[in-house]
Amino acid sequence: MSLRITVWNEGVHEARQHPSGIDEYYPDGIHGAIAEALRAHIPTASVRTAMLSDPEHGLPESVLADTDVLLWWAHLAHGEVSDEVVSRVQRHVLGGMGLLVLHSGHFSKIFTRLLGTTCSLSWRNAAEREVVWTVDPTHPITEGVPNPLVIPEQETYGEFFDIPVPDELIFISSFTGGEVFRSGCTFHRGRGRIFYFSPGDESYPVYNQPEIQRVLTNGVHWAAQPGIERAIPQVSNPERDWYLT
Amino acid sequence: MSLRITVWNEGVHEARQHPSGIDEYYPDGIHGAIAEALRAHIPTASVRTAMLSDPEHGLPESVLADTDVLLWWAHLAHGEVSDEVVSRVQRHVLGGMGLLVLHSGHFSKIFTRLLGTTCSLSWRNAAEREVVWTVDPTHPITEGVPNPLVIPEQETYGEFFDIPVPDELIFISSFTGGEVFRSGCTFHRGRGRIFYFSPGDESYPVYNQPEIQRVLTNGVHWAAQPGIERAIPQVSNPERDWYLT
Amino acid sequence: MSLRITVWNEGVHEARQHPSGIDEYYPDGIHGAIAEALRAHIPTASVRTAMLSDPEHGLPESVLADTDVLLWWAHLAHGEVSDEVVSRVQRHVLGGMGLLVLHSGHFSKIFTRLLGTTCSLSWRNAAEREVVWTVDPTHPITEGVPNPLVIPEQETYGEFFDIPVPDELIFISSFTGGEVFRSGCTFHRGRGRIFYFSPGDESYPVYNQPEIQRVLTNGVHWAAQPGIERAIPQVSNPERDWYLT
Amino acid sequence: MSLRITVWNEGVHEARQHPSGIDEYYPDGIHGAIAEALRAHIPTASVRTAMLSDPEHGLPESVLADTDVLLWWAHLAHGEVSDEVVSRVQRHVLGGMGLLVLHSGHFSKIFTRLLGTTCSLSWRNAAEREVVWTVDPTHPITEGVPNPLVIPEQETYGEFFDIPVPDELIFISSFTGGEVFRSGCTFHRGRGRIFYFSPGDESYPVYNQPEIQRVLTNGVHWAAQPGIERAIPQVSNPERDWYLT
Repeated sequence: MSLRITVWNEGVHEARQHPSGIDEYYPDGIHGAIAEALRAHIPTASVRTAMLSDPEHGLPESVLADTDVLLWWAHLAHGEVSDEVVSRVQRHVLGGMGLLVLHSGHFSKIFTRLLGTTCSLSWRNAAEREVVWTVDPTHPITEGVPNPLVIPEQETYGEFFDIPVPDELIFISSFTGGEVFRSGCTFHRGRGRIFYFSPGDESYPVYNQPEIQRVLTNGVHWAAQPGIERAIPQVSNPERDWYLT
Repeated sequence: MSLRITVWNEGVHEARQHPSGIDEYYPDGIHGAIAEALRAHIPTASVRTAMLSDPEHGLPESVLADTDVLLWWAHLAHGEVSDEVVSRVQRHVLGGMGLLVLHSGHFSKIFTRLLGTTCSLSWRNAAEREVVWTVDPTHPITEGVPNPLVIPEQETYGEFFDIPVPDELIFISSFTGGEVFRSGCTFHRGRGRIFYFSPGDESYPVYNQPEIQRVLTNGVHWAAQPGIERAIPQVSNPERDWYLT
Repeated sequence: MSLRITVWNEGVHEARQHPSGIDEYYPDGIHGAIAEALRAHIPTASVRTAMLSDPEHGLPESVLADTDVLLWWAHLAHGEVSDEVVSRVQRHVLGGMGLLVLHSGHFSKIFTRLLGTTCSLSWRNAAEREVVWTVDPTHPITEGVPNPLVIPEQETYGEFFDIPVPDELIFISSFTGGEVFRSGCTFHRGRGRIFYFSPGDESYPVYNQPEIQRVLTNGVHWAAQPGIERAIPQVSNPERDWYLT
Repeated sequence: MSLRITVWNEGVHEARQHPSGIDEYYPDGIHGAIAEALRAHIPTASVRTAMLSDPEHGLPESVLADTDVLLWWAHLAHGEVSDEVVSRVQRHVLGGMGLLVLHSGHFSKIFTRLLGTTCSLSWRNAAEREVVWTVDPTHPITEGVPNPLVIPEQETYGEFFDIPVPDELIFISSFTGGEVFRSGCTFHRGRGRIFYFSPGDESYPVYNQPEIQRVLTNGVHWAAQPGIERAIPQVSNPERDWYLT
């Protein structure tokens, strides 16, 4: 069965043509660039996109039930994502759907919901060089990824990154100014696998970089469990509900 | 400064005098028994209790701001706890308040909120013997605790326990029927320390057992950070809210 | 390329026909039973055996260089394994060879060498039932393994098991007497993957049980990295040797 | 009872007055500087020093039995440390003695013995600035430590650092050239606590920096377990020895 991938993007930067230049390096939006890269790297995959402005943000039950891995890019409009959709995504992740959370998605409702912490971090945007180092060299997400991976210009993310201790720490980045950041982390929640990868600010054409595309491709392969029975673990006592929200 | 402890109990079993016998072994309720034990073991502590039926469930901002460690016992009425109070408790835990979640509190809104998973488990109630084994013998929570610690009669909890991988696994229990359960686990979330300890079903006088009281006392000492600045980690960009719910 | 598997067995029990019965349920020895099971489950694999009594214990450089995964069963003669061979095996594990350590192999030189601790545990042999519970249900080692997996008769292993905190805890066992044991654990060391699985005492035909064979098969698949460059990570300063022994 | 600290230094740089300047910023040697700092920060402590050139390297059984925390600085002469002393130190660590391994001690026999890996890393020495960031801000080792802690000039250590995944990752450093390094890590082995802290090259007066002294002081307090019964966990079967070497 071919891998079923859904790339979600809030799409607010693209709609406002902000930052200037984004319509040049991402003519089809951030989601379009990522979807195209995944199609090129995984030719057998079925890749769709979904956006905040779609009905139910493009993530009705039928789409999630048909998705092995969901990628999530968002920045300006976290608060506009409906709690109902967030709960729906959470249920599917706990049931076995893979999730890749990208860059400013660290502040998304779905990521903070799954991790339980603020997921806050330090940041400043100075077009600095980011150097991404591998600290878990046999992890499948690192396969074929140069060490280090250099991004010429990126927003600077720095510690303290307020997340639970990751199940696996894969990448650590440094920035010209001296900051460090745990830029590649995995988490297991329920039956689902989550990979957070921080590069990808909208002001720079990061997702056009082949090495970055390789990381996303590896991440999708790692997070996908196409054979898994998609079910939230059974609650044994029907009297006691499970309180998602 | 003396340790400030708040013991929270939903109090529904006590109100209904169910199970029969609970008013004999816990004449002051589960919260009363725990509070009395902590007062005996930590004479300098200031111990208060709070209940579901109290205004704001007894947990207004002023009480949480004055609490180093909160203990949480609940079973039948998780759904009656207001989301506002849950968010308030979560903020204080992330800001540095300690939290002990007891027994059926695994299904409480606050525990599932902080962990992000269903926290479901297998269970059956057959008054079986629980044997609690130490697997982290130098952890302060195990100090003075017999290995194994035997509980003559308890509800049986079994794997799979749907939690994130604990930061520390301290106790594993077996039951007469052959089940095993990760009965003592710690988690760090934000600046707060969380200890889950599964013994303590309302049908048996578990909290009257001195060894159990010792675990709770150790847990309180471990989770307390009296000197910590109680503050949710700062969100660096005011445009991006942190979405607790 | 087909998977290259080497099953190592000290072979002392078999040589002495002790315990009585071992030559009936394992007519070709413990190594023979395991090798046969792996050949049946992975028909494309190339499976060889090696023993303590072979020259260089059957593990010269050429054999290790031609091995993707090594299985290690030992009990009575840990001290007879030469330090030179242990260092050789360690180098290959650190370079990327998979290692499955079975049952009483917990006390082998190679296991204690790689983990740095005593790897001691509690034990008694009373032909009790062992119930193996899965606590990491999406781990590939658990695929197709019943939960629980019941072994009618086994030696009892109990905590405290003096190992470093495992990178992944997969199985926890209970025994009739009430003991618990972390019976399935993984460790990463260097580029190599290590899986410890405790069932398999020589007094019972454990490795003839299809579910146990399934665990070993899964473990081999998980630990194998056939494409990996087999090399001890480079030491950057030739002046500073790396002190294996 | 006052804390009993032993500062071990191979002392080869000092003996050869290499690098030039070391006798000015460390007139009493690296061990002398560290010992003096610990005496100043923990006035009640009993601090002794020991060196490679001492009989039994200054670490006979009687000294280790009288030590709560051992600090280990070494660089040029790892191979000259006798295996017997290394085994003795390992036994005491497993029995509950704390161990702080400093800088180039990553390649010491005792550190590689306890961790089981090569502990190799990338390095170059260019007097670059090291910025030490805290990634576990409520860990006691970080108490009172500025975030970041800046070291004006240091040898550059970089990933991949070939260690097992640390039990706790506390500090990550960046260097002017863009390298990152897991510079503060803890490990539990047996009953002992181990803290590795990478700053401290002999070419720069790092240990004279008050913030560095604070980290060492916190590390000593964290690793010390003065009340612990110093004993290697019992091996239950005397027939099966535990093979340290």
